[in-house]
Amino acid sequence: MKIPEILMVETIHQPGSLAKVLQVIAEAGLIIDHLNAVRREQGRTLWEITLEMDEETDRSLYGRIDALPTARFVGKSDRVFDRHRGGKIRFSSSIPINTQQVLRDVYTPGVARVCLAIRDNPEQAWQYTSLDRTVAVVTNGTAILGLGNIGALAGLPVMEGKAALFAGLADINAVPILLKETDPQRCVDVICSIADSFGAIQLEDFAAPECFEIEAELRRRLDKPVLHDDQHGTAVVVLAAMHTATRRVGCRIEDCVIGQVGLGAAGIGIVRLLKCHGAVRVKGADRNPAALARLEQLGGIPATLEDIMASCDIVITTTGVRGLIKPEMVRKGQILFALSNPDAEIDPLLALKHGAAFAADGKGINNVLGFPGLFKGALEARAHRFTDEMLLAAAHCIANLTKGDDLVPDPLDRNVHTAVTQAVREAALAGMHAEKIDSLG
Amino acid sequence: MKIPEILMVETIHQPGSLAKVLQVIAEAGLIIDHLNAVRREQGRTLWEITLEMDEETDRSLYGRIDALPTARFVGKSDRVFDRHRGGKIRFSSSIPINTQQVLRDVYTPGVARVCLAIRDNPEQAWQYTSLDRTVAVVTNGTAILGLGNIGALAGLPVMEGKAALFAGLADINAVPILLKETDPQRCVDVICSIADSFGAIQLEDFAAPECFEIEAELRRRLDKPVLHDDQHGTAVVVLAAMHTATRRVGCRIEDCVIGQVGLGAAGIGIVRLLKCHGAVRVKGADRNPAALARLEQLGGIPATLEDIMASCDIVITTTGVRGLIKPEMVRKGQILFALSNPDAEIDPLLALKHGAAFAADGKGINNVLGFPGLFKGALEARAHRFTDEMLLAAAHCIANLTKGDDLVPDPLDRNVHTAVTQAVREAALAGMHAEKIDSLG
Repeated sequence: MKIPEILMVETIHQPGSLAKVLQVIAEAGLIIDHLNAVRREQGRTLWEITLEMDEETDRSLYGRIDALPTARFVGKSDRVFDRHRGGKIRFSSSIPINTQQVLRDVYTPGVARVCLAIRDNPEQAWQYTSLDRTVAVVTNGTAILGLGNIGALAGLPVMEGKAALFAGLADINAVPILLKETDPQRCVDVICSIADSFGAIQLEDFAAPECFEIEAELRRRLDKPVLHDDQHGTAVVVLAAMHTATRRVGCRIEDCVIGQVGLGAAGIGIVRLLKCHGAVRVKGADRNPAALARLEQLGGIPATLEDIMASCDIVITTTGVRGLIKPEMVRKGQILFALSNPDAEIDPLLALKHGAAFAADGKGINNVLGFPGLFKGALEARAHRFTDEMLLAAAHCIANLTKGDDLVPDPLDRNVHTAVTQAVREAALAGMHAEKIDSLG
Repeated sequence: MKIPEILMVETIHQPGSLAKVLQVIAEAGLIIDHLNAVRREQGRTLWEITLEMDEETDRSLYGRIDALPTARFVGKSDRVFDRHRGGKIRFSSSIPINTQQVLRDVYTPGVARVCLAIRDNPEQAWQYTSLDRTVAVVTNGTAILGLGNIGALAGLPVMEGKAALFAGLADINAVPILLKETDPQRCVDVICSIADSFGAIQLEDFAAPECFEIEAELRRRLDKPVLHDDQHGTAVVVLAAMHTATRRVGCRIEDCVIGQVGLGAAGIGIVRLLKCHGAVRVKGADRNPAALARLEQLGGIPATLEDIMASCDIVITTTGVRGLIKPEMVRKGQILFALSNPDAEIDPLLALKHGAAFAADGKGINNVLGFPGLFKGALEARAHRFTDEMLLAAAHCIANLTKGDDLVPDPLDRNVHTAVTQAVREAALAGMHAEKIDSLG
């Protein structure tokens, strides 16, 4: 897997000095991911150059940059590590702890009254504790990013990253929980044993197929929202992007034949949500027979990669296999989402060149558009579960907020998260209202 | 159990108007816990009057206050509830989530490099995640305050209170974890399954005797600091107060015969720490034979309440039984700590009147003096466990910071927590250094 590395390179103010550096990088076969002028003084500029490298990348590159007469290789930046130093989340008290009275109110003896109120009516916990803003972000480390089973502790920076985004974008307290368990039943039991601590549960980076069983069992046993983000969060953002793409091409998702290549957590989540949205013909391909059986349970049609490429109007790939789709397989007018990160199944530009009407990779399709509002909306409605309607509402909301030529909205725009929260809350409340009427009738 | 209730009473500006209100309260047999003028305008004052009431308290009191010609019963204050509304802890991101670059650094793709660094060297998690400032505050709700087994959810306000104090006084991220388990082995298993999420574990309000087994087993299985605060946090603060008292009376703890009445979590913790400190003769009383066996294991001597009162220089009571000690049982020159809250085993003033050289109740002996610095010091040293030396260092530090006529320092003074942190860290490092030398030798 490719990992971003940040080189610090100093160039002298002279036409072509940066170009020469980039030429050396180009000769090493590397693509520039990001370029940033950090400092410009005394006739020199310090650049941060972000490259995607893997273990095979030839590091002699650094020496060749340093050998240029107009550049100097300063070193590798630790900016990413610096930003992680000391962790990414901070807790604070909602009230400054500054007088004896505050101490006596928030702790003993005052707190006893609040405890008794909750003992007598557990619902009060939603009002007088942080439960209604607290989400567990749980992983067992079996499928961290594209890195595989690296263990829960090594996944903690991802969980803290989610927590930082939850806090920064939606004022949600997200607690990373690292599970030392791989057996699905043990995972479920432990999560159920601590579930009272949280208003909702986000499952994160659990490997397929165990993730399906774990989520289903938790939904059955817990009376609170549970969501495996890799399945449903991804699906929400993909469906939103698909709205944008079909609108641009001038077709409707419901009328298209759709192919999903790769039926892991993300692929299955996408098929599920597409069927919920009203897609009629959804084909799927995977090497694993159990994955195909799961597809059929959802009403999808098993197929081969070749059949999907030849017959589908829209194709989504989530295989992790770089270059899986050969340019000649692309059908004219096809919509393509080649979502594997960091290396797509086909370069979108190449797909367009070979006749695709629309093509995108996974770089812009970021779950962070979905999960903060999904959870905040569910908590605000005090929903007992995530429903398909809530997921669809989020996807439609994200699609409607997309501006101009963008595929999806800017995930840093807090207004987006406010809107998603509201859409999800309304869908949840409508569902709970309908359930109530059902139970009365 | 008595619970503070806050009455809102308005009086007109006239000599004696407040006195009449207090007279009515006195006639109801209630003691004023706190009195606060909230507002003074247009010839009227609004008072917050805090009283300790229990379920038997006659509420017709309110009507009698209202019937006074110079006062009006406005209602009961919800100040405590207001301060709990929406919960007491807030998470934030350590870096503002405001640019694509930050998003790419703290989340994907940048985070992958940090994950791999931790996979290759798990120690790095202490540097690049919040682990080194994160403590789980775990309860199963079996002994919440003096309220008994009211369940973990009803105990959440206490756990959040601890988290608010951890954050406000020592910049520690404390995560309330509510366990739906009562079997000690299940409690241990679940905590071990999630322990990687935290730098240290605080056990809180677990009932005795299960608390002893749970703590011992966790210490055996986990390579990180575990502390049952009701045992050891309480003991640290009691030992600090005992230093002050003996200094004032002019004796040394080591030379005294000490009696501990009540051998639950707090009592056993106190006996343990006294023995560690060097107390030679420690007697203990409890109705439960298993508790007496535990006392003997610690080198204590089983005795009766009467024997302890007749023979001990220092007596500590943690029984929860109001008025257990009759004034005539007090020996001349005795030091008495009657620690049960909210109702002491003997009123300190009464004890002094009957010849005690020193007497205190539990109101000022607050665990909050101990736990923030105990945990921060352990985390800063990256200690693998709490040692007796760390607990003693905290107690001595707190004792040394006590000023003037105080029994213990002001728990709201952050300097106290900084000093305790440093004392505990140094004791931990000295211990780890000695272990290292031992293992070399």
